[in-house]
Amino acid sequence: MRVAVIGGGVIGLALAWRLTADQHSVDLFDDRPGHGASRAAAGMLAPSGEAWFGEEPLLRAGVASLRQWPEFAARLGKDSDVDVGLRTEGTILLGADDADAQTLDQADRLLAQHDLAARRIDRRELGRMEPAVASGVRRALLLESDLSVHNRLLLDALLDAGARRGVTYHRERADVEVSDGRVRGVRGRTSGESHAADVVVIAAGHELSGVAGLPDRLRGVVRPVKGQILRLRMPDPLVRRTLRCLLHGDPVYVVPRLDGELVVGATSEELSDHAVTADGVYELLRRSIAFLPGLREAELTETLARSRPGTPDNAPIVGETGVDGLLVAAGHYRGGVLLTPLTAEAISALLRDESPPAEVAVLTPSRFNPTPPAE
Amino acid sequence: MRVAVIGGGVIGLALAWRLTADQHSVDLFDDRPGHGASRAAAGMLAPSGEAWFGEEPLLRAGVASLRQWPEFAARLGKDSDVDVGLRTEGTILLGADDADAQTLDQADRLLAQHDLAARRIDRRELGRMEPAVASGVRRALLLESDLSVHNRLLLDALLDAGARRGVTYHRERADVEVSDGRVRGVRGRTSGESHAADVVVIAAGHELSGVAGLPDRLRGVVRPVKGQILRLRMPDPLVRRTLRCLLHGDPVYVVPRLDGELVVGATSEELSDHAVTADGVYELLRRSIAFLPGLREAELTETLARSRPGTPDNAPIVGETGVDGLLVAAGHYRGGVLLTPLTAEAISALLRDESPPAEVAVLTPSRFNPTPPAE
Repeated sequence: MRVAVIGGGVIGLALAWRLTADQHSVDLFDDRPGHGASRAAAGMLAPSGEAWFGEEPLLRAGVASLRQWPEFAARLGKDSDVDVGLRTEGTILLGADDADAQTLDQADRLLAQHDLAARRIDRRELGRMEPAVASGVRRALLLESDLSVHNRLLLDALLDAGARRGVTYHRERADVEVSDGRVRGVRGRTSGESHAADVVVIAAGHELSGVAGLPDRLRGVVRPVKGQILRLRMPDPLVRRTLRCLLHGDPVYVVPRLDGELVVGATSEELSDHAVTADGVYELLRRSIAFLPGLREAELTETLARSRPGTPDNAPIVGETGVDGLLVAAGHYRGGVLLTPLTAEAISALLRDESPPAEVAVLTPSRFNPTPPAE
Repeated sequence: MRVAVIGGGVIGLALAWRLTADQHSVDLFDDRPGHGASRAAAGMLAPSGEAWFGEEPLLRAGVASLRQWPEFAARLGKDSDVDVGLRTEGTILLGADDADAQTLDQADRLLAQHDLAARRIDRRELGRMEPAVASGVRRALLLESDLSVHNRLLLDALLDAGARRGVTYHRERADVEVSDGRVRGVRGRTSGESHAADVVVIAAGHELSGVAGLPDRLRGVVRPVKGQILRLRMPDPLVRRTLRCLLHGDPVYVVPRLDGELVVGATSEELSDHAVTADGVYELLRRSIAFLPGLREAELTETLARSRPGTPDNAPIVGETGVDGLLVAAGHYRGGVLLTPLTAEAISALLRDESPPAEVAVLTPSRFNPTPPAE
């Protein structure tokens, strides 16, 4: 089939590449592929992080996608010349005070129900594993199954692998062309050119609502949630594992890269601008320095803000739209990188007229609307 | 006379422009004029700030230069098309706790001896003057005579005025050519070309020691002192006056621009690199937010580090070097913008074989060496 993908974030790029393996002919439309929210991401592959909010469908999808990650990374490595920097040292959850410890313990009980083994570690073990962590944290939980990936290398790898497998990249935004209740293709916003397609997948992230041709009932489901992030660099990285910390109720994470970079994030603000603010940078530094005093010595190489695509239940919308041939894969909020393999697999299954994995089936766009999709 | 100026910071640019008024022919050498420490400066014209350290020669020079600033800015405005954004609302010194208040009161007593009238203002008056300042500061002193200037517009204006008055800008670094104890000119480091000159003035800031031809006994007098600075922006500026704050002994200043920008500075580190660090940014935000909580909402538009030229007594070295025809104007540390008019005037006087102003005469390079300059 001829498939058009609208959106060149991690989701759009991954499914474009994935669909070439099914012998589809793929066109991808984005004015700056790889420069949206995916570029600001930390690359944590940590479904446990989401579990703090007790959203079980999202947690199940995250766990399923995490399991696919090693094979996904290996296949991507074969199709590109880029090593995505997969790290397997796991995550340590840290709580600063008694209330933070209670929150972590609640998350731990939820995780145990989903076969995610968290192990409580004491101060001595924590000091041995990550000596840079401040003494005096109230709770430390080790999640050995969590992974992380270098988000920018991942974007490079996907672009490269897609190009090698025949994806055609069109450097412009595009809208959907529909007639008689069926997708006909897409139209480039800059060129005005139409491109015929049997299937269109909209993977436009927080810009979903702005895509012409999307059914009205799906407009407004995805909203921009601003996130600010810092990148720092030290000659010797302070930590080996991802840290997810709660400081008197305020969250912060620190993700170490194999190349010495540290990513500190992320704020969540109900805003659509991309301004880096004094408050955002101050809070990320305050919270991360509280857990890692040695971080003060790091060079602050980048501050960045992007809009992530949020949904009412914080889980993505992946599936059919009610318009024949029109699919959506958007709203991945803070879990885009984690949910990439599962999302690409689900879209591939739908194009084969198969059911998507059960963890994705429940994330159908129709859950926000009583009208079932037309068949 | 034919004068060569080495260094295109605020000092070098100002004296190049100033010397054209004395009918000298001026060549200025810098690979990137206006992009060194002057570009990172906050533009405070506030000798009181230095008074905290009790360095009286520097204080006297600052007071004398401050008095020249309005006329200097007016003349510069006539010779260029750039308004340098001189602000006349004054400075407020703020102390957070009792010890900070004591430090400010000491500074106040010193200032009173130098005809700098500081006036203690109470919380009600402070609230009326600057409602954005946090309640609960222990001491507020108003210095009505302080000024401030937009450092980057100042650099633009000096470049423009110099060009109009016939300064020739050479976009390369240069060394001094000396023979038989007399300056002969300069040699460009990139082109290797020699340019004859009757007088050479080295205004190379923290790079003074690296200029070939400088007498050995002046090498090492100037050292790099790293300063980090933040630029922020708000739709409506939070304050009208410059704030110089002490937070439990830690200093920070906030300089508001007429165009809505706020400059927050500055760290002082005995380092020569230009890396922005987590510690630098965190401390500047922590201290400034403590006095101005509303600053959290500001966009953080720039973080920058530069090396300022420090000297053993924190005062610049301005005057003759012992080599016939070779002058130095460097080592202005944190006072370069403030001391610009006085420094340019002093070099102009020396070229007329007149004595420089008394406040500059004591800043002669020979003060760091028992050997008097050869006459």
